[in-house]
Amino acid sequence: MSQRLVTLLTDFGLSDVYVGVMKGAIAQVNPEVRVIDLTHQVPPQNVVAARFCLMNAYPYFPPGTVHVAVVDPGVGSARRAIAVELEDGFLVGPDNGLFSGVLSQQRAIAAVELINAQFWRSGQLSTTFHGRDIFAPVAAHLASGVALRELGPVIDLQSLVQLPIPDYRSEGDRMWGCVQYCDRFGNLITNIPESAVVEQVWAVVIGETEIMGVSSYSDRPAGTLLALVGSHGWVEVAVNGGSAEASLKLHVGDAVEVLLKPNAWGRLPPNLR
Amino acid sequence: MSQRLVTLLTDFGLSDVYVGVMKGAIAQVNPEVRVIDLTHQVPPQNVVAARFCLMNAYPYFPPGTVHVAVVDPGVGSARRAIAVELEDGFLVGPDNGLFSGVLSQQRAIAAVELINAQFWRSGQLSTTFHGRDIFAPVAAHLASGVALRELGPVIDLQSLVQLPIPDYRSEGDRMWGCVQYCDRFGNLITNIPESAVVEQVWAVVIGETEIMGVSSYSDRPAGTLLALVGSHGWVEVAVNGGSAEASLKLHVGDAVEVLLKPNAWGRLPPNLR
Amino acid sequence: MSQRLVTLLTDFGLSDVYVGVMKGAIAQVNPEVRVIDLTHQVPPQNVVAARFCLMNAYPYFPPGTVHVAVVDPGVGSARRAIAVELEDGFLVGPDNGLFSGVLSQQRAIAAVELINAQFWRSGQLSTTFHGRDIFAPVAAHLASGVALRELGPVIDLQSLVQLPIPDYRSEGDRMWGCVQYCDRFGNLITNIPESAVVEQVWAVVIGETEIMGVSSYSDRPAGTLLALVGSHGWVEVAVNGGSAEASLKLHVGDAVEVLLKPNAWGRLPPNLR
Repeated sequence: MSQRLVTLLTDFGLSDVYVGVMKGAIAQVNPEVRVIDLTHQVPPQNVVAARFCLMNAYPYFPPGTVHVAVVDPGVGSARRAIAVELEDGFLVGPDNGLFSGVLSQQRAIAAVELINAQFWRSGQLSTTFHGRDIFAPVAAHLASGVALRELGPVIDLQSLVQLPIPDYRSEGDRMWGCVQYCDRFGNLITNIPESAVVEQVWAVVIGETEIMGVSSYSDRPAGTLLALVGSHGWVEVAVNGGSAEASLKLHVGDAVEVLLKPNAWGRLPPNLR
Repeated sequence: MSQRLVTLLTDFGLSDVYVGVMKGAIAQVNPEVRVIDLTHQVPPQNVVAARFCLMNAYPYFPPGTVHVAVVDPGVGSARRAIAVELEDGFLVGPDNGLFSGVLSQQRAIAAVELINAQFWRSGQLSTTFHGRDIFAPVAAHLASGVALRELGPVIDLQSLVQLPIPDYRSEGDRMWGCVQYCDRFGNLITNIPESAVVEQVWAVVIGETEIMGVSSYSDRPAGTLLALVGSHGWVEVAVNGGSAEASLKLHVGDAVEVLLKPNAWGRLPPNLR
Repeated sequence: MSQRLVTLLTDFGLSDVYVGVMKGAIAQVNPEVRVIDLTHQVPPQNVVAARFCLMNAYPYFPPGTVHVAVVDPGVGSARRAIAVELEDGFLVGPDNGLFSGVLSQQRAIAAVELINAQFWRSGQLSTTFHGRDIFAPVAAHLASGVALRELGPVIDLQSLVQLPIPDYRSEGDRMWGCVQYCDRFGNLITNIPESAVVEQVWAVVIGETEIMGVSSYSDRPAGTLLALVGSHGWVEVAVNGGSAEASLKLHVGDAVEVLLKPNAWGRLPPNLR
């Protein structure tokens, strides 16, 4: 059968050889497997940021892609190592909630605990680097056509550790959410989804400031605060050509309010008329 | 036909999943296309730095390589999305001048505006991430053998946005140029080309300091300022084992003077005798 | 024949196009060769750190992998360019000691000096970027099946520049070594190998502090100093969920003492009983 892709998402950084070694461990199982890096610069041991990154990348890969995510503060403890089969892909990594984002948006078929050691790296298992010794080899086997159920016993999908995206709250024309991620450009991505504001006139309210929702960064002059639905599908606060994080001094977890405006047609953006 | 390579150059950084998602979008079109990263750490929205990087990398790839460059402060505005066919490769990205460097050195055959949506990502087009929704899929189609003219209407090559490399000025044995790029080692790369100093004895003059042109970093003791023609083919100021940027406090755009010296044969480097 | 893998390890960083250009130079020789990055963020010209990284990554790749390492302060000087054939792989790079780590752990078969220019990049050889002009093309030829001896004359393995891992010293139940590397997590990796402490009860002693050796990070509460044999196979000092480098203010080269404890069985970790 044709090889599937493997993606890697870790907090290993790029200054050490940990990521390269995981790719070597994949190649030792099957040198034909192709690997794509999602990111390796998740802040160390930040499972929440990893959950956001994986959830937002998942839909953009071909059917059958195997996503390996290793942000694993519990490595060497009793936390389970798992693989999950979804309708159009696989997840491999520690059972610590980092798959909660994907699992809130995609339908899971089955999960297994990775205990069948014949699919691990041969030789002594380290207690500190399961990315190399378990997750990379298992992903290479999945990408080579090994069936999920060969990797270990089926476990209840309900038993997976949950770390849900925090809900936003709404009342009338107001919504209260929070910043769930800040990207390299200083864009502040909230937990309020596109569906909550679609075809509405809306603004983000920060303290006394009302920041109108627009369609794209370039709808506002350079250096100006703006709000939009970002490419991930969440309400986002940005500065055209600048950093909203630096302007507003907001961080992950900080509260954000969205206000729906009276739907006076004259105020709707042209593309919604 | 055999697949062509795709290269990626962006200002997306490596801490978010934007680059990985572009690779996923390519794989969704054709999982066999191979991708090479040029760099993703262009300073945010710095089209001038991107132009330099792409120009200097272009000659080192096989014929037919598709170079995708996305440093795109105008995403979502009226700026055109384009593809250009050259004698030995393709360029894909926004029409904002970032291809000016390559186009000053290579012969272009044709350009098109990317408006044929059947070669874009299917589904809703975002206003903020054309790298994922237009440029990556179009590059994957080009790399899979789709002809340039299928992607959209031909546009006049003269109509492309120009952001030319600034010219240097010369008068007698003196030349005045500027720093056009500073690399990770603190090497200051000017806009004065190798052809202006080849087979000459020359020096860079910074204030009262005259820095002799040599052949390689190791021609001067560790910690010493030197000038040479760098691997890109431009006059460059460096410190052997150190940073000229830190030593001289020069930055992109700062003036640099080159002085040709009387061609007394005894002073020529041995390899030119 | 099937293609071999090529790995790249440099100090070129990821903000410039140097690494991408090396991959282009490989693809110009053979577009089918697959490339894996080990790291490109070795501190500039730090041959000691590069030696550590390559030594620890080497065992995790398939037989026949070609490892290119370019941390090359002597580029353009008289230092030799070499390739080494080992039982299960190849090394390509400058002869400046950066292969000393691998060569202390693996059996070398032969070495050659890279002087046969038909395997280099065609055109003018730069004096500053042998990674692009010599090492990448040579590696692509090796990965395509060219024999080592075609690349240049055989040289004596004993003549290679040595930069050995510093030895640790032991006396009775005490050992004295040093920090040989600090990774992205702030883990301090010493030059004391697993074999020196295996099946022992042991502690690292820093000043007045005795840090017990355990099996994994999670054996100690978050924020606590601990010692263990890391995934590389060396004694390592770490903080569970934190940075030992930041806690202890230790750096590469600083002294570390290990103390073997009386082997009272009751104190052995359960997995050793």
